[in-house]
Amino acid sequence: MGEIILTLRDYHLTLNDVADHQPEYLETVFSLANGHFGVRANDPITGNPITGTLINGFYETAPITYGEAGIGYATQHQTILNLPDLRHLHVATATGHDFTNSERTGVDLDLSTGALVEHYTLQTLQGETIKMTVKSAIGQTKTEFWAIDYSFSAGNFAGGLVVSKAIAVPAEAEAIASADPRKTRMAGLPICETAFVSRDLQRYHVKTRQTKLAVTIYLGILTEGASLLRQNVDLSDQGTHSLTYEVYVGEMGQQNTIDPAATFMANSLSALLADSREFWQDVWNRSEVTVGGNDELDLAIHYNLFQLNQAAGRDGRTNIAAKGLSGSGYEGHYFWDTEMYMLPYFIYTNQKMARQLLLYRYQTLPKARQRARALGVTQGALFAWRTINGEEASAYFPAGTAQYHIDADVAYAVGKYYEITRDIDFIEQCGFEMVLETAHFWEAFGSWHQVGTDSRFEFHTVTGPDEYTALVNNNYYTNRLAKHNFNLVTYLAREILKDDPHGLEKFGIGSADLDVFDNLAQHVYLPYSQELRINEQDDSFLSKPRWPVDQSAPENFPLLLHYHPLTIYRYQIAKQADTLLADYLFPEDLSLSQLKREYHYYEGVTTHDSSLSRSIFSILAARMGDTEKAYHYFMDTAQMDLVNLQKNTADGLHLANLGGSWLALVAGFSGFYVQDEVVHFTNHLPKELTRLTYRMKIAASVLEIELTATTTNVTVISGPIPTYGVSVNGHLVSLEKVS
Amino acid sequence: MGEIILTLRDYHLTLNDVADHQPEYLETVFSLANGHFGVRANDPITGNPITGTLINGFYETAPITYGEAGIGYATQHQTILNLPDLRHLHVATATGHDFTNSERTGVDLDLSTGALVEHYTLQTLQGETIKMTVKSAIGQTKTEFWAIDYSFSAGNFAGGLVVSKAIAVPAEAEAIASADPRKTRMAGLPICETAFVSRDLQRYHVKTRQTKLAVTIYLGILTEGASLLRQNVDLSDQGTHSLTYEVYVGEMGQQNTIDPAATFMANSLSALLADSREFWQDVWNRSEVTVGGNDELDLAIHYNLFQLNQAAGRDGRTNIAAKGLSGSGYEGHYFWDTEMYMLPYFIYTNQKMARQLLLYRYQTLPKARQRARALGVTQGALFAWRTINGEEASAYFPAGTAQYHIDADVAYAVGKYYEITRDIDFIEQCGFEMVLETAHFWEAFGSWHQVGTDSRFEFHTVTGPDEYTALVNNNYYTNRLAKHNFNLVTYLAREILKDDPHGLEKFGIGSADLDVFDNLAQHVYLPYSQELRINEQDDSFLSKPRWPVDQSAPENFPLLLHYHPLTIYRYQIAKQADTLLADYLFPEDLSLSQLKREYHYYEGVTTHDSSLSRSIFSILAARMGDTEKAYHYFMDTAQMDLVNLQKNTADGLHLANLGGSWLALVAGFSGFYVQDEVVHFTNHLPKELTRLTYRMKIAASVLEIELTATTTNVTVISGPIPTYGVSVNGHLVSLEKVS
Repeated sequence: MGEIILTLRDYHLTLNDVADHQPEYLETVFSLANGHFGVRANDPITGNPITGTLINGFYETAPITYGEAGIGYATQHQTILNLPDLRHLHVATATGHDFTNSERTGVDLDLSTGALVEHYTLQTLQGETIKMTVKSAIGQTKTEFWAIDYSFSAGNFAGGLVVSKAIAVPAEAEAIASADPRKTRMAGLPICETAFVSRDLQRYHVKTRQTKLAVTIYLGILTEGASLLRQNVDLSDQGTHSLTYEVYVGEMGQQNTIDPAATFMANSLSALLADSREFWQDVWNRSEVTVGGNDELDLAIHYNLFQLNQAAGRDGRTNIAAKGLSGSGYEGHYFWDTEMYMLPYFIYTNQKMARQLLLYRYQTLPKARQRARALGVTQGALFAWRTINGEEASAYFPAGTAQYHIDADVAYAVGKYYEITRDIDFIEQCGFEMVLETAHFWEAFGSWHQVGTDSRFEFHTVTGPDEYTALVNNNYYTNRLAKHNFNLVTYLAREILKDDPHGLEKFGIGSADLDVFDNLAQHVYLPYSQELRINEQDDSFLSKPRWPVDQSAPENFPLLLHYHPLTIYRYQIAKQADTLLADYLFPEDLSLSQLKREYHYYEGVTTHDSSLSRSIFSILAARMGDTEKAYHYFMDTAQMDLVNLQKNTADGLHLANLGGSWLALVAGFSGFYVQDEVVHFTNHLPKELTRLTYRMKIAASVLEIELTATTTNVTVISGPIPTYGVSVNGHLVSLEKVS
Repeated sequence: MGEIILTLRDYHLTLNDVADHQPEYLETVFSLANGHFGVRANDPITGNPITGTLINGFYETAPITYGEAGIGYATQHQTILNLPDLRHLHVATATGHDFTNSERTGVDLDLSTGALVEHYTLQTLQGETIKMTVKSAIGQTKTEFWAIDYSFSAGNFAGGLVVSKAIAVPAEAEAIASADPRKTRMAGLPICETAFVSRDLQRYHVKTRQTKLAVTIYLGILTEGASLLRQNVDLSDQGTHSLTYEVYVGEMGQQNTIDPAATFMANSLSALLADSREFWQDVWNRSEVTVGGNDELDLAIHYNLFQLNQAAGRDGRTNIAAKGLSGSGYEGHYFWDTEMYMLPYFIYTNQKMARQLLLYRYQTLPKARQRARALGVTQGALFAWRTINGEEASAYFPAGTAQYHIDADVAYAVGKYYEITRDIDFIEQCGFEMVLETAHFWEAFGSWHQVGTDSRFEFHTVTGPDEYTALVNNNYYTNRLAKHNFNLVTYLAREILKDDPHGLEKFGIGSADLDVFDNLAQHVYLPYSQELRINEQDDSFLSKPRWPVDQSAPENFPLLLHYHPLTIYRYQIAKQADTLLADYLFPEDLSLSQLKREYHYYEGVTTHDSSLSRSIFSILAARMGDTEKAYHYFMDTAQMDLVNLQKNTADGLHLANLGGSWLALVAGFSGFYVQDEVVHFTNHLPKELTRLTYRMKIAASVLEIELTATTTNVTVISGPIPTYGVSVNGHLVSLEKVS
């Protein structure tokens, strides 16, 4: 791989009109992360010193209190810890005037290297000003490290400065109760121990009380001979003086026997910048997407992929939180968003990462088995709807645990991973067990219902992806995915048997079991409206009244922040793509005319109050040839966080939407999907774009796809000429290798 | 009324095998109450001194904490206060040995007078024993008063005693968190002030912190010259020595300017016993039910009516809590149980009390209007599912607020009250407004659904009486009651117009509005299974799988204490009568053959985990002529608390079931119902009973009904010969007055 290196143009996310943005928004947007930990871009002077750093999977639990508890309810909140801001700094004049005011005058994030540069003007209460430039970078293969450099120069003040920096220890704080379920809560404060190993090195040890997780963080000042707590800087020479600091964030639970001083030397800011640059070069080389005709959009899609890569846990024990490592919204939980919205990007561009993300889910399988039992299902496993440690942490089951579809989503992702990688080892070691256990779950969870001569296998009292409709029967999406789960388990079983005739023995199943699954797959009921000639979202969705026009003023959205769930549930109103999400996943299921009917129908009853919605609407609009609509939805998708569309970017980025924006380009504008070992591309480029180019890896081949208004080129830029079929605009083609 | 006085035979609830019963069970079963306050029968020596007294409607609030809160959720718990035990006593020998051990050797509650007599043997750690007899009574028209007399006599000890008695002030206690939603919680402790006005009088003032309610309680010792805190008793004469105390429990919020000493003199124990006796004579005279052939059952039904009368708030500002004043289960909340299970007894035997109970609901109408708005319903009112003060206090909306049927239940009760009383004043002042506001609610809450040529008016995402099935569409019970609500509003409107041609003007409705209601009533959709030829519980109930046989072991019941709601909801399993409850209310709706089919079907899927279930099954079995089954269900109903059938009588009596047991006799065995100004009686007396006799008041006439295996007699014992029709065993009869 990598024979042809793309030269990334200068992709800088730059803000000069910083004052127009709320600080929390900037902290999120310019956060740096590496899958292990994230550093929000707090203002070093005025930002909150006790929050800003998030370590993936470093969480605390607290009992969930219910107004009225029930059997089998999730018992423990899991909450990612908001650790002290690593960027905080105290600056004063030598005469003792603190610089308490700070204005961020410019920010520049270089997406090709990961370097973040910011410019500040600091001011004391007495009116003295200086300028400060801050450069920072996070290690991308050296994932324990982050470094920052503060350069000071004179403003109206040009005398002596005293600079001090330390990791702040949080004081007691109260738990936050919020009516907004998308925000986070403050868990019990961890046990913190901090010590100054030497004048240039602080150790900070943080241990959780309930989960017994521990991390050691070191803060050092790299500037030779300098002191952390009191460092003099003299600006009277009118020069620029910089102080460089480095932070080491250990792995959870590991004894940190490092020699920080030596380690820091080897990982200076410039070393981290080089490490970061190399990492991003590789990322862009694998997966760069360029869009012609709209520079802003081109930048946005680069930004999205940048943040997606920053957020993803790489160790097989962590995953991608709903807000990544950019904010503590949704408590740092992992959802089905990973498998359905983010994993595709990794499956098609970085299969090792995709495997790591699936491994995380596999590790939660024992807890998923317990959860199935707690739900009265006698076999199989039910993955947690929201979780860090694998246990269910949803405190509102109608829109949490009842979304059983997560099981089929995980199975679907395993299938997609295998389809492209043919990684039979992973299937035999982990993947098949997940698909088998989820299939067993559906088998025991569902029930037969005889309607006339029709034997239906049905699923009752479930919630589909649309959280504005809860506890319904035969949610189309759930049923369709469960059907796929049954099909997949027999398919993968036969793949294993090809590889090893005894390969199924360890799973305790034989051909009779496969026959059962085949039979179930054939009989899963898929609701369809004869009247409207569309798939029905569920057995009753279409019979409910539409949301009242007089309650449809823009200020009433998102509905979940303005209406009781009972109010929302009784109407025919969807938060997001639901049946259409299944249509997107299974293009072969329905004719173009039916798709158009369904799209038209469900678009009329969907609020897009979820960030998971617009990307799917964009993809399907493209598939239907309505590229104008596809473009419209895509633009909201692509720039959702940059324009703060959902107005809560302060809580963190909408990671699933970042993945969705990639899907919209690839599955939408270029019509990509894989079916029966044929890879399909169809040119649906909107007229607003002059060109779309991207790379993906399928089996061992790296393909480059380039679309213009009149051309659709797919070439092999690395690896062998594919053995699978490639269809371009409906015609099978032979690929050529460019070299 | 009252020309013929029944002489109540000696109905004593007596327990001599007291040791076989847990103390909390006895405390509940022998509790005394008068609608204003209740005194549980705590052991005076070993019982918990800080709980045992409950004042109807005296409650505290505390914020409801949700794992994940939502818009419009109930915000405040309302919890009846557990006030100090008024029966507690401290007894020691003059040598300082405390009597710390106590054995209750006998209890006798005289249902004809309300006198409670108990016998105890007390023992010190040193082995000294004495005997104590305790007599107590609560005022029934003098509802502020309760008195108790303790008589001491020698056991193996015959020396001096020191007796002290005071109202105990509770210390700080922790909130109780329980997974059993049927239990109560401890609210924040109230502010208590206690003072000894004199050596024979203690004042106890208790004030809630949030609700700002206050009550003053006085405890006095009536024995002349005696002291509350230290009273010597000398048993050396081998005689019996008694001390008599009295308690005054003020009305909430009233300044207590009474002269306790003088007041107490006028209300001595003997005066209270006389007051109580008179009250119960009147109750039995109005409403006595006697059953021949089973003395135990005869006693049980007397006990049930006794407790029902004790529990009911009589002031128009309080109601009947789910556990009455016998225990703090369900937090002292009022539910729909009042209107549907308890009010009928009062409507047909004590119309003034029935009116007071409806007045309570009327007073909550302003809060019910607010609640409807909070649920996104633009007109009408939604009564709180569970409440003391009229605000919704259900912390689990799928089995709380979603039971919208409470609106139609209240309307139904108003209609039943009017049907019998013709109390047009009440309708014009209160009743019509409730029926109109609930009809307006249904009008705005429902929606039209066109199915072929059929225009249905439907109700979506509701929970019916069966709490094991939640958030469904077109619950038959709900729809049928809503249809009745529409019919009733037009009926009552026309009744008002007869009384006063301008009578509707103040309600702002005219004939066009009545036409709208008429039209809605005609089109309310009632689900019916063509296949099974039965009414369907809801749109999807019959398509769900049955509860698995392998999870049907007795120890798995009640299901709500063993399974996650999601597990229960996805099966075709009912906690209680639901569609059958509607069938009971509207006998004219269905043929006997359909009733039999429905009964057979729903009996097979009902667990009777609710105490509201068996009485309805008994009534319908009787109506179907299956008197054996009717008797079987009735026996569980009649003795539910006396045999501790639900195993939680310790938390309080099942008041609705007490009412239900009366319904089972009257509506079941004697086939009583009223339809189109005809009062129907049909003899369904089970062979196990030789006779059933009861009284009821319809319009101004008191009827006595007497059934034997071969006879059915209905006579007028007071008031005029009725102008309405009376049907006995299917034939209209002319009644004669016995005198």
